[in-house]
Amino acid sequence: MLNEIDLETGKLRDIKNIVVRRASDMRGFFSNSEALEKLIESGDPIIYEVFEWKYSSSPGNLSYAVTVLRSGDVGGEFYMTKGHYHEKEEMGELYICLRGRGLLLMQNREGDVKWSEMKRGNIAYVPPGYAHRSINVGDEEFIFLAVYPSDAGHNYGDIKEKGFRKLVMKKGDGYEVVDNEKY
Amino acid sequence: MLNEIDLETGKLRDIKNIVVRRASDMRGFFSNSEALEKLIESGDPIIYEVFEWKYSSSPGNLSYAVTVLRSGDVGGEFYMTKGHYHEKEEMGELYICLRGRGLLLMQNREGDVKWSEMKRGNIAYVPPGYAHRSINVGDEEFIFLAVYPSDAGHNYGDIKEKGFRKLVMKKGDGYEVVDNEKY
Repeated sequence: MLNEIDLETGKLRDIKNIVVRRASDMRGFFSNSEALEKLIESGDPIIYEVFEWKYSSSPGNLSYAVTVLRSGDVGGEFYMTKGHYHEKEEMGELYICLRGRGLLLMQNREGDVKWSEMKRGNIAYVPPGYAHRSINVGDEEFIFLAVYPSDAGHNYGDIKEKGFRKLVMKKGDGYEVVDNEKY
Repeated sequence: MLNEIDLETGKLRDIKNIVVRRASDMRGFFSNSEALEKLIESGDPIIYEVFEWKYSSSPGNLSYAVTVLRSGDVGGEFYMTKGHYHEKEEMGELYICLRGRGLLLMQNREGDVKWSEMKRGNIAYVPPGYAHRSINVGDEEFIFLAVYPSDAGHNYGDIKEKGFRKLVMKKGDGYEVVDNEKY
């Protein structure tokens, strides 16, 4: 039950589960599928990794995970996580940024959409009912710790179909949040 | 929904609720009540403070709090939090130590008792069913972040009556964990 986290780098001593998402795992999520295919052909890089610890998946338990999101873009759209609603949509989630510069994009079924800038020490709460996606808008790894009910679950299907209402695109040295025309 | 935490000191920018426990709030919790009364008379110092943020208390939400536990002892028993079971005993809790040296003492209804040493970067999980108490065994403030289901609740009554199975006492420059004879 005791673990260690390096509060500078997010490195966990004990890990129960690792998820690695390469470019080829992200088909359907980036808006420019041609640029994505090019990226896959040119070495299929890792977009992000998730290092999870959990005690039990039964209701009442909490799990946590460190996500390391690489820096880059696909046709101008910044590297990002797939994003998901919780299967149990009444469940919230807590994010603590340890490193890098990111955005936490959130939207609910009623059409509300918002985003928080994330930098070290930012601690953001995803309220129940909000799908959430993390985007790396900086030029180094964006690393954050998430804490969530162990039985919250992931629902990617809705996101893969329509995406989020907003895309986060490169603009000069920064970013801009634009409407997703496919939504 | 966006907050900031100083990952060195635990200081939160936004706080919804502050709990301050002075020596006089701890009657019944320290084993040496004579020493406690003396401490109360000599200025009734703060033992610990809890700085809580929450979005909503409804089921499915998560809350978090930073606890700053002072350094000291009451008749040789280290400064500590009251400790509690959750009202909803099926709910777990996550602790991340930011500063200082402490112990996280846990026990369940079946008689299991255990403790974890806490120092910066230690991340400890309190499983469902375990009462939990934090103890400062160092000579500076022991500061940690806790994340818990917003509807977990606190049940102090059982602890005030019998305490924990173990006491954490000064021993030379360190500590020892001894049986609580009143339990």
